[in-house]
Amino acid sequence: MDLTKIKDIYASPNYNSKIVVAGWVRAFRGNRFIELNDGSTIQNIQCVITDSNLDTKKINVGSSLKIQGSLIQSIGKGQTFEIEVMDIEILGESDPDKYPIQPKKHSFEFLREQAHLRIRTSTFSAVMRIRSKLAFGVHQFFNEKGFNYVHTPIITSSDAEGAGEMFQVTTLNNNQNEKKGIDYSEDFFGKKTSLTVSGQLEAETYALGLGDVYTFGPTFRAENSNTSRHASEFWMIEPEMAFYDLNDNMDLAESFLKYVLKYIIDSCKEDLKFLDERLLKDQSQKPKNERDELSLIEKINFTIDNKFTRISYSDAFEILKNSNYNKKKKFNYLINEWGCDFQSEHERFLVEKHFKSPVIIYDYPSKIKSFYMRLNDDDKTVRAMDVLFPGIGEIIGGSQREERLDILKKRINEMGIDEKELWWYLDLRKYGTVPHSGFGLGFERLIMFCTGMQNIRDVIPYPRTPKNASF
Amino acid sequence: MDLTKIKDIYASPNYNSKIVVAGWVRAFRGNRFIELNDGSTIQNIQCVITDSNLDTKKINVGSSLKIQGSLIQSIGKGQTFEIEVMDIEILGESDPDKYPIQPKKHSFEFLREQAHLRIRTSTFSAVMRIRSKLAFGVHQFFNEKGFNYVHTPIITSSDAEGAGEMFQVTTLNNNQNEKKGIDYSEDFFGKKTSLTVSGQLEAETYALGLGDVYTFGPTFRAENSNTSRHASEFWMIEPEMAFYDLNDNMDLAESFLKYVLKYIIDSCKEDLKFLDERLLKDQSQKPKNERDELSLIEKINFTIDNKFTRISYSDAFEILKNSNYNKKKKFNYLINEWGCDFQSEHERFLVEKHFKSPVIIYDYPSKIKSFYMRLNDDDKTVRAMDVLFPGIGEIIGGSQREERLDILKKRINEMGIDEKELWWYLDLRKYGTVPHSGFGLGFERLIMFCTGMQNIRDVIPYPRTPKNASF
Repeated sequence: MDLTKIKDIYASPNYNSKIVVAGWVRAFRGNRFIELNDGSTIQNIQCVITDSNLDTKKINVGSSLKIQGSLIQSIGKGQTFEIEVMDIEILGESDPDKYPIQPKKHSFEFLREQAHLRIRTSTFSAVMRIRSKLAFGVHQFFNEKGFNYVHTPIITSSDAEGAGEMFQVTTLNNNQNEKKGIDYSEDFFGKKTSLTVSGQLEAETYALGLGDVYTFGPTFRAENSNTSRHASEFWMIEPEMAFYDLNDNMDLAESFLKYVLKYIIDSCKEDLKFLDERLLKDQSQKPKNERDELSLIEKINFTIDNKFTRISYSDAFEILKNSNYNKKKKFNYLINEWGCDFQSEHERFLVEKHFKSPVIIYDYPSKIKSFYMRLNDDDKTVRAMDVLFPGIGEIIGGSQREERLDILKKRINEMGIDEKELWWYLDLRKYGTVPHSGFGLGFERLIMFCTGMQNIRDVIPYPRTPKNASF
Repeated sequence: MDLTKIKDIYASPNYNSKIVVAGWVRAFRGNRFIELNDGSTIQNIQCVITDSNLDTKKINVGSSLKIQGSLIQSIGKGQTFEIEVMDIEILGESDPDKYPIQPKKHSFEFLREQAHLRIRTSTFSAVMRIRSKLAFGVHQFFNEKGFNYVHTPIITSSDAEGAGEMFQVTTLNNNQNEKKGIDYSEDFFGKKTSLTVSGQLEAETYALGLGDVYTFGPTFRAENSNTSRHASEFWMIEPEMAFYDLNDNMDLAESFLKYVLKYIIDSCKEDLKFLDERLLKDQSQKPKNERDELSLIEKINFTIDNKFTRISYSDAFEILKNSNYNKKKKFNYLINEWGCDFQSEHERFLVEKHFKSPVIIYDYPSKIKSFYMRLNDDDKTVRAMDVLFPGIGEIIGGSQREERLDILKKRINEMGIDEKELWWYLDLRKYGTVPHSGFGLGFERLIMFCTGMQNIRDVIPYPRTPKNASF
């Protein structure tokens, strides 16, 4: 008899039907009530043993069972239906004295060391189901819009991307007796190669042939900093659109975010509800003035329901400079001089206190932005944009790209980058250059926003951070 | 006025409407007829200049234009409609003496060196649009089936995957004065790390919590071999399903392949037609006995329409051994002894000559398969399966996984792998182990099958192979 997924039982319970379910025991009470979970949903199904002949000795938290029974209405509290057990097959035992995942609250730190088993907890299964649905929402959005998905290279010989420290990729160390001073011509690719920090430059080459494209793949940073927001390996989404100016780019970023967040609200109801309640419990233990104003689901809906406010860097600078927060020195970094970069606290002030909506800041000072962003006529700002969200600040960074060969070359030289490194990127401006734009979104930051998880290590199955590449 | 995509014009031509299109010039004939392509489709739109006041000097192959005009029925041959040009804006020029992509047939070898521009050719834009649609079809299939997408780690400290030579990931070389003998405790992750060759083992951990999962990400092999079928960086799809036995696994593999191929047939009609005709032209230049029996689209439909034949290794061995091909020594490798691995020529014989259907071979000799495959009661075969396709042989390899702790440990020891390396993998068999199965599919092999491209370098935007990591 085919297995029925617990998710399908909840979607349309077929009373008095015989069914077979299989999953892992989350709890076993009174030698009678099994809470079984199969990963298809956050909800367990209660299986009730009434036949005293059934052997229950090997039923423990963590053991895996195949249960045959009849779906009946439950008279107990907490569930509307349950399975009256007819037969149990023990698929795999679990020694209750050794199994690390007990039916109690474990710290996230402890669970990171059990990353292969933490997926069997409610919190992590909810987070990872949301991660999966978010990824699908991303692909579906771009597919519906006619974008082409491009797999830009992971191993790169370019170090002009400039987004951060890079990991080297080599086979030289396989032969442990090389001399001091490394001869990269003998390396696998015949030169020094690294792990990509961004697929943008290659994505631009494809946008200037296919029109609208996006990347969605892993990127890497070898920065030796341990924070709750940075990982050495993370996934990025980078759309790139020919014939888009910065306004088109802002329109796309706004509709993209609203689409994927709406998709999550619609497709992950139970998981969001669980995480929302979890967070509310955490919040209730904090002093009142430190609690978030919005709950998790409210925060997501806040970004779906509100039009994103668009404001230039210069105007945002004035607002921040003249704000009470600045005057009363409530900011850790005071805003004094035009040209400074905004910190997360400033971004959140604009979103949460001033505008009470998501905000897009555009036309940033060129000095704090990358070489490929299009220079404005004022010669001091570039057509960059950052999208700011409540709770986290920047979620998207993008720009219209510099499509004029002479100005791009000037900017490359100013930054001290070797032009020859970027010959193919410059070719795009020599042959049929067009106005084009794009943006980048750190996928994990979006997951953290949707799940309320505070540490990036808890939204990645097997996170990689300095001194940690376990599993 | 908003831009109209050429694809949308072909989908529903709105005659006598004013439209604006933008794209790149593919051809310019008689100072009058522009073939414009915007990447949204393989089809160009013909734009006809009738106004002799328009300046056409800067219109060349490769230049980018914005054209305003009126969509009218064409009286010329080769197209049913065309744009009567009212205004042209030159967005980017293209020096006809320098632009590498001319309106003639370039060799694939030449185009690989112009990988940033080859996407502007019909062949590569068709291949890469199909690549993108195939990826979406993969995600859609698994999403519809309730699978969760898992991002398994790219950087790994495990070298027990055993699928091939690995690239090292390091920051030690950033500091070029290390001594002979490398102290990995000083490396970024505090130990030796490499690029993953497979996400399977980590995917198994997630299947044993979420039920049905799949990976779809880049994998790496540092094998120093230059063939048309191997790249150092390629994308793999690896589903992993709790409670699936090998038969369920075969069912899933068959329905998966049929689904994505049907999706391509439905969504990439024009691109497939173009590639089909391209291949037919190539074939017509070959001697008759060397031509493929099936055209590209026929080959795809062959796999959609036929039930996959399932046969054990031992039975397949007998068929091959007793075949006329073997007896008349038409095989390069003759089939004599039970236990040998089948070559592509044998696989193709079974598919194309003997069964005339895709074939799944199962229950392979354990000696030629991996440690994690479930041992049969005969003690000499494992529950492995390979799916074989016309033209290419193996497209999928999979197995039911060994879920029994004692037998798995024995196999690990036999293979000389250090048990401690796999402590977390063994944990899955200690705590709630369940029967489970999965398979792996090299994404590029699927693209090659769908596009008829003969070299893996031509289905990857920026291929990485020994001594080549350009762009």
